[in-house]
Amino acid sequence: MNKINVVILGATGTVGQRFIQLLDHHPYFEIAAVAASEKSAGKKYKDAVAWKLDTPIPRSIQDMVIQNCKPAMDARIAFSGLDSSVAGEIEMAFAKNGYAVVSNSKNYRMEPDVPLIYPEVNADHLALIDVQKKNRGFRNGFIVTNSNCSIMSFLPVIHVLDKNFGVEKMTVVTMQAVSGAGYPGVASLDILGNIVPYIGGEEEEKIRTEPLKILGKFENERIRYSGIQISPSVNRVPVMDGHLASVSVKLKKTTDIEEMKTFLKNFRGVPQELKLPHAPQRPIIVHDAIDRPQPRLDIHLDKGMAVSVGRIRPCEVLDYKFTCLVHNTIRGAAGAAILNAELLYAKKML
Amino acid sequence: MNKINVVILGATGTVGQRFIQLLDHHPYFEIAAVAASEKSAGKKYKDAVAWKLDTPIPRSIQDMVIQNCKPAMDARIAFSGLDSSVAGEIEMAFAKNGYAVVSNSKNYRMEPDVPLIYPEVNADHLALIDVQKKNRGFRNGFIVTNSNCSIMSFLPVIHVLDKNFGVEKMTVVTMQAVSGAGYPGVASLDILGNIVPYIGGEEEEKIRTEPLKILGKFENERIRYSGIQISPSVNRVPVMDGHLASVSVKLKKTTDIEEMKTFLKNFRGVPQELKLPHAPQRPIIVHDAIDRPQPRLDIHLDKGMAVSVGRIRPCEVLDYKFTCLVHNTIRGAAGAAILNAELLYAKKML
Amino acid sequence: MNKINVVILGATGTVGQRFIQLLDHHPYFEIAAVAASEKSAGKKYKDAVAWKLDTPIPRSIQDMVIQNCKPAMDARIAFSGLDSSVAGEIEMAFAKNGYAVVSNSKNYRMEPDVPLIYPEVNADHLALIDVQKKNRGFRNGFIVTNSNCSIMSFLPVIHVLDKNFGVEKMTVVTMQAVSGAGYPGVASLDILGNIVPYIGGEEEEKIRTEPLKILGKFENERIRYSGIQISPSVNRVPVMDGHLASVSVKLKKTTDIEEMKTFLKNFRGVPQELKLPHAPQRPIIVHDAIDRPQPRLDIHLDKGMAVSVGRIRPCEVLDYKFTCLVHNTIRGAAGAAILNAELLYAKKML
Amino acid sequence: MNKINVVILGATGTVGQRFIQLLDHHPYFEIAAVAASEKSAGKKYKDAVAWKLDTPIPRSIQDMVIQNCKPAMDARIAFSGLDSSVAGEIEMAFAKNGYAVVSNSKNYRMEPDVPLIYPEVNADHLALIDVQKKNRGFRNGFIVTNSNCSIMSFLPVIHVLDKNFGVEKMTVVTMQAVSGAGYPGVASLDILGNIVPYIGGEEEEKIRTEPLKILGKFENERIRYSGIQISPSVNRVPVMDGHLASVSVKLKKTTDIEEMKTFLKNFRGVPQELKLPHAPQRPIIVHDAIDRPQPRLDIHLDKGMAVSVGRIRPCEVLDYKFTCLVHNTIRGAAGAAILNAELLYAKKML
Repeated sequence: MNKINVVILGATGTVGQRFIQLLDHHPYFEIAAVAASEKSAGKKYKDAVAWKLDTPIPRSIQDMVIQNCKPAMDARIAFSGLDSSVAGEIEMAFAKNGYAVVSNSKNYRMEPDVPLIYPEVNADHLALIDVQKKNRGFRNGFIVTNSNCSIMSFLPVIHVLDKNFGVEKMTVVTMQAVSGAGYPGVASLDILGNIVPYIGGEEEEKIRTEPLKILGKFENERIRYSGIQISPSVNRVPVMDGHLASVSVKLKKTTDIEEMKTFLKNFRGVPQELKLPHAPQRPIIVHDAIDRPQPRLDIHLDKGMAVSVGRIRPCEVLDYKFTCLVHNTIRGAAGAAILNAELLYAKKML
Repeated sequence: MNKINVVILGATGTVGQRFIQLLDHHPYFEIAAVAASEKSAGKKYKDAVAWKLDTPIPRSIQDMVIQNCKPAMDARIAFSGLDSSVAGEIEMAFAKNGYAVVSNSKNYRMEPDVPLIYPEVNADHLALIDVQKKNRGFRNGFIVTNSNCSIMSFLPVIHVLDKNFGVEKMTVVTMQAVSGAGYPGVASLDILGNIVPYIGGEEEEKIRTEPLKILGKFENERIRYSGIQISPSVNRVPVMDGHLASVSVKLKKTTDIEEMKTFLKNFRGVPQELKLPHAPQRPIIVHDAIDRPQPRLDIHLDKGMAVSVGRIRPCEVLDYKFTCLVHNTIRGAAGAAILNAELLYAKKML
Repeated sequence: MNKINVVILGATGTVGQRFIQLLDHHPYFEIAAVAASEKSAGKKYKDAVAWKLDTPIPRSIQDMVIQNCKPAMDARIAFSGLDSSVAGEIEMAFAKNGYAVVSNSKNYRMEPDVPLIYPEVNADHLALIDVQKKNRGFRNGFIVTNSNCSIMSFLPVIHVLDKNFGVEKMTVVTMQAVSGAGYPGVASLDILGNIVPYIGGEEEEKIRTEPLKILGKFENERIRYSGIQISPSVNRVPVMDGHLASVSVKLKKTTDIEEMKTFLKNFRGVPQELKLPHAPQRPIIVHDAIDRPQPRLDIHLDKGMAVSVGRIRPCEVLDYKFTCLVHNTIRGAAGAAILNAELLYAKKML
Repeated sequence: MNKINVVILGATGTVGQRFIQLLDHHPYFEIAAVAASEKSAGKKYKDAVAWKLDTPIPRSIQDMVIQNCKPAMDARIAFSGLDSSVAGEIEMAFAKNGYAVVSNSKNYRMEPDVPLIYPEVNADHLALIDVQKKNRGFRNGFIVTNSNCSIMSFLPVIHVLDKNFGVEKMTVVTMQAVSGAGYPGVASLDILGNIVPYIGGEEEEKIRTEPLKILGKFENERIRYSGIQISPSVNRVPVMDGHLASVSVKLKKTTDIEEMKTFLKNFRGVPQELKLPHAPQRPIIVHDAIDRPQPRLDIHLDKGMAVSVGRIRPCEVLDYKFTCLVHNTIRGAAGAAILNAELLYAKKML
């Protein structure tokens, strides 16, 4: 089988490194090029990168010469881990030039004709690609995005509850790992033995809005947003990987804890049906132990692609409350984008 | 001036150590005895204690011989940092034998005739002492308590909002320091680079109920509880000292952020009027910086006796949300008990 | 192929958990029984264990009923992760009753007739097994041990230098992870944001003596110890896994850094020749980057079975100095024991 | 008494902040001006600084307008916490223009005519000031420096041993806190739960050489360097404040542990004789507990101005070994410079 060539944009960054790690020996995709800023372009990857993962740089990438982020590679997909300060222009250039841009950056997430996909939840929103092509005069190129990492912790859980019982409103307090801020990112002086009750980049705004698009309905060539009211409070914590979230929800229909657990445990989506390579067997892992999920113990479940939920119990103010967890740089970033690309592949949209 | 003799019960524990540190050179009180379990009794304090504070053991205490927790000391006050497994019996024995027991333990907090005091909020609840004495046939002895440490982070803030605007309901997600669990307490394997979304000892139950008593009204020789609905979610975080809390509230009257800030900043209580030695100048410090309060930077404000509140902003689900912080072993434990004792002293109730 | 049945002694402990994790789907061995203290015996494994690894309990073990540590299992090998307070008696009982005891405990390491094995270094010391059997009247049973975890960080490096250039003396300052102390082990109050320049259990004594046996020569049915003078200084650091060591050595012959690196990189031992399942491809990984090895980045190399060495440079007081690293609960404990067992298997000594 | 006006150069940096904190209400000195880079100049101090200390910005400084680092202030002393990339030029300009520059920067430390002072050890080296003035044609201005922070942990201990027994050589492995790297300094991704066996800025070179100057003798208008051979190995650890060092020494004369302890405990220097405000009562605190000193517990001793030494025991390779500790931003940086200035004041050299 011929693999599809892909290029990694922003290849030296935190998300770029995860793309490279997770795409090593991928059954569908082959990294044909790595691209980064001018500062790195022209250097061997291993010489330009400050590699921060605990597996070595894949052999095939080590000596690859970094290219500029110009749409001149022999590749069908451009995975983008670009910083939002430059992602806008570069991603658009790649889309215009015929590349399928699968982006983790925030720039186009909320554009009306750009799919914002969590494959288990809204695979059907890929229909926006045709709208996008038409709107923008793209021929083969397009942009597909995934959401902000902190949202992924609770999104599939809220989806299941919403589909079955209707979610009216929710509060969510996040405790987010430092890897979410990239490198150098959070200074150790700020976070060692400390918590910072704030995250820059309009994190709370994203949490308030992005889920509404993902949970929305594709109708008449556009997404009708979900109406769930979301109140987020974000915190940075001294954890390396894994965003934890304390969530309370108000439901439209009555249910009970056992029924909710059953729906959550049994939930499967399109990636599971299609047996996509990065699809977790169970998108949501329900924990019964009273003190789980925990970042250190649970982020690696199903290779970091499953989210966890635990401590499901009644809420004294809304209806129910629980704790969610996602591996923020796998399911919450690079892994999410790869799963999006696998979905495109399986749907023959590449 | 003659100082009042006090004894520290549970003197070798985490709270006991703070009592000893904070009472060094106290203007009203003099540590006349230290008491602990049989294992430690008979030893010099410095030989029995695993001292974990970053100031040395006060000279006057180092060689003091630890006594059994029996009511046979020449002391008027018994400060109790006892573990709840033993506090019940011992504290009662001291109260019966004429000691003013000022306790940080949970055992008697919710007894109808035992004052649960946050001096800036409900100093008038000390009137329960007479009820208690009558009920129980105590002559000079009695028990006064302070609340669980995690509650202290938000309690004075909620009190100010409740008094001025009426608080109907609230959610609170805590991020609690390891010192709150005593020693050895939380295993490093559980918390290094990790978060545990659970705290034993019915922490959430305490948060749900203790504030209702403190915020209640003394009427007809008893406390009529507040009716605020509180939904707590607790987390243990890798922070040494300082409990942080993300709070959302629903108010009965409308207000705005500036008005709330003004009331919070201007709030003063009985300890400030009486200029008690451990009274913070400002019981509540309102932070305007977008990323505050933080445990590392703000727990020491006003010698650890002020609580902090920041990030006051509208809540999309309830009305307003904000972040609170308390030094859990000072204002949240030993310092709280000492302030209670100073209040008793100033009110001539000793 | 029929797998060999093994039992895990001390199955619920930190090392026991690693045994279970690493033996899952092992090509030679099958866990037929798990055994632990009376407190756990009779319970299902998943109900008795406080599982602290970031992969789930293997399915085949979850419901296995824990047995007492009595030599009554249908198994050929007893892997021991027992606490030293009980390991002495139990391991001896198993050896007497015909089990091959492959132990990570310290109790018998320094017994003259018990092999203390680091397979790449002194596989020939297994000849002590016959001596042991003769001495003690064992028929099929025997005890084989591996060294203390902190030693593993530098041992193979010292072996290569000693073999090629002669090591006369060395200083070693360790920075050891908390997982080395088991569970609950190190209290978070002691180690969060802190360093403790001491480790109990005679850690420095072990570092001074155990390497001398491993690096010794088997002659006349006994081990003639190496004469290297070792000066250890141990520290506990807030790291989850990975013991780091700063080492300085005085050599007998002159060499240079490039020559040392070449010998270290090219070093292979018996496990590599025999292609044992847990043998790292390269027992020693030599880092050229100026800031490596680091626990977070390098402990997982070769599945945690390779040790790392870096920063090789001249020492102003002795001859050369460098930094070593080992995954303390894999290569430094359970993985070491498993490699010992694989060696026994390949040598047909089971 | 009229206080002496001082200016803080690099006032917004990590060391500059400590200067401001420690000089608040100083008996000799008054901060008359704060200066920083052009980016900050013209702003109020509180608006320009990312204040990272756990006490608030002193009231008198909050609204002070930051000046450029030009020698145009009404001040006698310029305390410099400047980054070495700019310290060279600026400090020289201030010295030329008549200011007493008391610097924590590395730029002039090793200049033959610039005193590198640890007041308890080599107060007499201040005689170099006259040489410096003569050499450079300064009238009232001059530069005095203190050493790198990591050196301070062991320097007074080595001085006492050297004076009494002669130190021939020493190895030192440091475990250095993140605050030593300034802000933003060490990225949390690099150090959370990790150790980095390297520190930039030629840290090991400084440790090898700066002590030789401090421990040298002033003779014939210059310093004859000490001949101690020092082998340093540096590590960055996830600790906020406090540099720990494992040291081994070879002595010229024989002694024993008790004798060494006696000399170390009884050591007093010029700052103690002169009762300088920042002089610790005991420059060296000798710990007998087997697991001390520890950063979390011992850096604040004597307001962070005393160094600690413990675990004094024989070394199997050299003669003795022990563990040292210094508060790296107080005694190791700003506090050291202030003590130098206090010494100048008491010696009437201002």
